[in-house]
Amino acid sequence: MARIVMKFGGTSVADLDRIRNVANRVKREVDAGNEVAVVVSAMSGVTNQLVKWCQELSPLHDAREYDTVVATGEQVTIGLLAIALQTLGVDARSWQGWQVPIRTDDSHGKARVEEIEGSALIARMQSGQVPVVAGFQGIGTDNRVTTLGRGGSDLSAVAIAAAVKADRCDIYTDVDGIYTTDPRIVPRARKLPAVAYEEMLELASVGAKVLQTRSVELAMKQRVRVQVLSSFEDKPGSMVVDEDEIVEQPLVTGVAYSRDEAKVTLRRVPDKPGIAALVFGPLSAANVNVDMIVQNLGADGTTDMTFTVGKTDLPRAKEVLETARAEIGFEAMLADPDVAKISIVGIGMRSHAGVAATMFRSLAEKGINIQVISTSEIKTSVLVGAEYTELAVRALHTAYGLDAEG
Amino acid sequence: MARIVMKFGGTSVADLDRIRNVANRVKREVDAGNEVAVVVSAMSGVTNQLVKWCQELSPLHDAREYDTVVATGEQVTIGLLAIALQTLGVDARSWQGWQVPIRTDDSHGKARVEEIEGSALIARMQSGQVPVVAGFQGIGTDNRVTTLGRGGSDLSAVAIAAAVKADRCDIYTDVDGIYTTDPRIVPRARKLPAVAYEEMLELASVGAKVLQTRSVELAMKQRVRVQVLSSFEDKPGSMVVDEDEIVEQPLVTGVAYSRDEAKVTLRRVPDKPGIAALVFGPLSAANVNVDMIVQNLGADGTTDMTFTVGKTDLPRAKEVLETARAEIGFEAMLADPDVAKISIVGIGMRSHAGVAATMFRSLAEKGINIQVISTSEIKTSVLVGAEYTELAVRALHTAYGLDAEG
Repeated sequence: MARIVMKFGGTSVADLDRIRNVANRVKREVDAGNEVAVVVSAMSGVTNQLVKWCQELSPLHDAREYDTVVATGEQVTIGLLAIALQTLGVDARSWQGWQVPIRTDDSHGKARVEEIEGSALIARMQSGQVPVVAGFQGIGTDNRVTTLGRGGSDLSAVAIAAAVKADRCDIYTDVDGIYTTDPRIVPRARKLPAVAYEEMLELASVGAKVLQTRSVELAMKQRVRVQVLSSFEDKPGSMVVDEDEIVEQPLVTGVAYSRDEAKVTLRRVPDKPGIAALVFGPLSAANVNVDMIVQNLGADGTTDMTFTVGKTDLPRAKEVLETARAEIGFEAMLADPDVAKISIVGIGMRSHAGVAATMFRSLAEKGINIQVISTSEIKTSVLVGAEYTELAVRALHTAYGLDAEG
Repeated sequence: MARIVMKFGGTSVADLDRIRNVANRVKREVDAGNEVAVVVSAMSGVTNQLVKWCQELSPLHDAREYDTVVATGEQVTIGLLAIALQTLGVDARSWQGWQVPIRTDDSHGKARVEEIEGSALIARMQSGQVPVVAGFQGIGTDNRVTTLGRGGSDLSAVAIAAAVKADRCDIYTDVDGIYTTDPRIVPRARKLPAVAYEEMLELASVGAKVLQTRSVELAMKQRVRVQVLSSFEDKPGSMVVDEDEIVEQPLVTGVAYSRDEAKVTLRRVPDKPGIAALVFGPLSAANVNVDMIVQNLGADGTTDMTFTVGKTDLPRAKEVLETARAEIGFEAMLADPDVAKISIVGIGMRSHAGVAATMFRSLAEKGINIQVISTSEIKTSVLVGAEYTELAVRALHTAYGLDAEG
């Protein structure tokens, strides 16, 4: 017997048939003797329609009213799923965010969960009732409905799992787990039985968007064991857990890529103290996130600075830097949006030397030029020309022995 | 300066353009120096869709979950209208039932309003803010969302008007007021500037469904002055007020009709004490409402009993009476669904004799046979053959001098 939080996203509850399907899945866990709470999103498409109405009325609408409107999507789903469960003979009741309560701050539209009162839910679960909780929403200190931002239902599920001290938080979605890399690029990509929190965070930040990043952070902080699995197929998914739980830790767990970045190079910047602040201060003030940064010292007291920004931020970044040109004193600015970031991620890299060397050698053998390198404790990323994305991912997947057999 | 509650139904907020139109109407009252609160229904069609989903999942669904689902319709509208008002520069905020709070009993799906805390709304109105309150919903003692039953937004509006001690409750709808009779039958029907609460109740009960009956009862009890007016045209509507406010009270205020009843006659019932209880007890137990009742004493110790029931209840009524036949002891049962009830309504009837006589004479002159008569203090109703409905209504409208001039 275990205590489980099951979370179903919008495509899993898109219509009445799918809601009935979810009810059957929940009933199976209940029949197996588990204590179950369910967290659901809005029926797919509904939230978009509600957001569109708010935006059409006013692009600068009151976020508190926006929250009042969009939170209705989840409210509909919890009521319908509770009815569907009762029809199957499962004792169930719906819970809106303010009823639990799920307390958040007052940052409407992107609120942070501050505290969840788990006691009422635990008591119901212990008595055999299934709480059906609205994801994505909470209640602010202003006694008004808040929402957690897009993808917030994952976060709700993890936070509720922590609050009710669940053994597991199962995130049902339209993929069946976490893979060593994108199976559309590498057909022999393997589903990972287990991934460490830190690895999942690095994978998410480089483009493998299975779980919302904040929900992984929260799971790591609260030590919530998360399972990602398919709501349409009936097979085990991937566990996201503490690294100690992973018995056989490979050197590299996965290969990720992102085509969302652009490269900027400032030529012949004076190499003086405080120059980095002059470059990155104005970008930060303009809300432009900078990711990889490298600096090459020249012989003549100048330096070339190269860094990446989000592709959509590139026009703004160029404008900001042009404005600050005199102050920074660079000779030329080059911008290249045709780049891709390829990353290898693995907890095993911490304790093994030479992991990155394999990466550089493999790419060199394919004739792929590395433009920028950046490393963290469990990740090495390189920037390459965008046209090499698939070739690089495949080469690395093979080089680190990740290809499935057969 | 006045304090006004404005209520807009589903067709008045059916899409964003209409919501903008409502916002403009509200702004006009605010600009005129009034304190305004708004009560809104769900966008038309939305509630029906939500109800349908619940019913498709289970015809016998949990009313508490039903309420959770259908209350979302109003929640969407209040948020959107608040945004639309803010866009016009009007300070506004939305209020859900539980936020006000609008306290009800726990009869989910048809809850009764028990208490509304008006203080928060009054404070906001006095500070120049427009509260936009969700109609149709409240919060039960179980801390769950309740709904008041179909048409409940009228009731919400009147209850809120009472709670904030409003000078007037304006019900915006798709008709522009209350008429002396149905203008589709009598083109020269006149819009009434004022109608007494009691008259409105009698008119509503005989088919003139402009206002939900419970809302009129509440308005009468709490002495809330109600105005019925069009949300699409810009002209005064009809006031529903205390009879003392109506200066020139005509003998007959209006002529109403209903085709929703059927006539049942039991022939040769033994005329003994307790016979009425034998007939009407089982009908009541089967939830069949009986309206008009007449009993003609025969010479031989038997009596003929005639009464009307709702047309949709007729099969059930016949079944119940057949079952009880031996006990009641009637000789034959005749049922006739082809009848119409025609009523004249007017406070003036209280103090004037001969008002009903005019009715009987006018119908006789047209050759219309009266099957059943029933009277109350301010109403006289007759049952006639359904095919005479329009003829009877027109004859009476003319006989009581209600036709518009010109």
